[in-house]
Amino acid sequence: MEIDIPEVRAEVEAAFARYEQALVTNDVPVLEELFRDAPQTIRYGVGENLYGMEAIRAFRRARPSVGLMRHLFRTEITTYGRDLATANTMFRRDAMVGKVGRQSQTWVRFPEGWRVVSAHVSVIAEV
Amino acid sequence: MEIDIPEVRAEVEAAFARYEQALVTNDVPVLEELFRDAPQTIRYGVGENLYGMEAIRAFRRARPSVGLMRHLFRTEITTYGRDLATANTMFRRDAMVGKVGRQSQTWVRFPEGWRVVSAHVSVIAEV
Repeated sequence: MEIDIPEVRAEVEAAFARYEQALVTNDVPVLEELFRDAPQTIRYGVGENLYGMEAIRAFRRARPSVGLMRHLFRTEITTYGRDLATANTMFRRDAMVGKVGRQSQTWVRFPEGWRVVSAHVSVIAEV
Repeated sequence: MEIDIPEVRAEVEAAFARYEQALVTNDVPVLEELFRDAPQTIRYGVGENLYGMEAIRAFRRARPSVGLMRHLFRTEITTYGRDLATANTMFRRDAMVGKVGRQSQTWVRFPEGWRVVSAHVSVIAEV
């Protein structure tokens, strides 16, 4: 199990950056594309627990598209072998005073490309 | 990328159950064993952001061992191929009135066995 093979890591970094750009611009088609379209895909959000891509899709499509811009820090992407990666990052938003967000994603390579199969986002008091 | 190969899934279910038992009994050696001992391992907890196994180990060893019992529900384990799994679960504790916990783990198979490489735990208001 080789960790952080440079070309694999570069692929995941590109997918991660594409997701982030889609998130802050509320580009719903790209957000949906980058999550695996399957009932097993899970996303725990800041205030919601979404089991399966149908639930995730319904949430995305109903989401207000304002105030999404954020600043990432302590972003760590690690690849395990050629088909698996974890991406963890913390983030701040102007409207989240005294609070910090954490986002964890598990990425898997499928024939159609790298996809998120599990994600967890939460906000806590700044520590 | 075969999903949920039965014998692979059974292995991860056993590792997950072992982790849960260790968590509620504060069996620190087993908790430490089941996280990959590496600087890349990350655990976002209910109130802490731990980067690297050294930070995770320091947190475990300082943790009070009371009030850890919890009831899991909507637990979903999914395996991707033979070396990767995600485990997501929600949980309640008696002391967490009106709140619900969410725990996400990414498990990877190494020569030494299945290990958590990334974990995220958060508590939100019941939805």
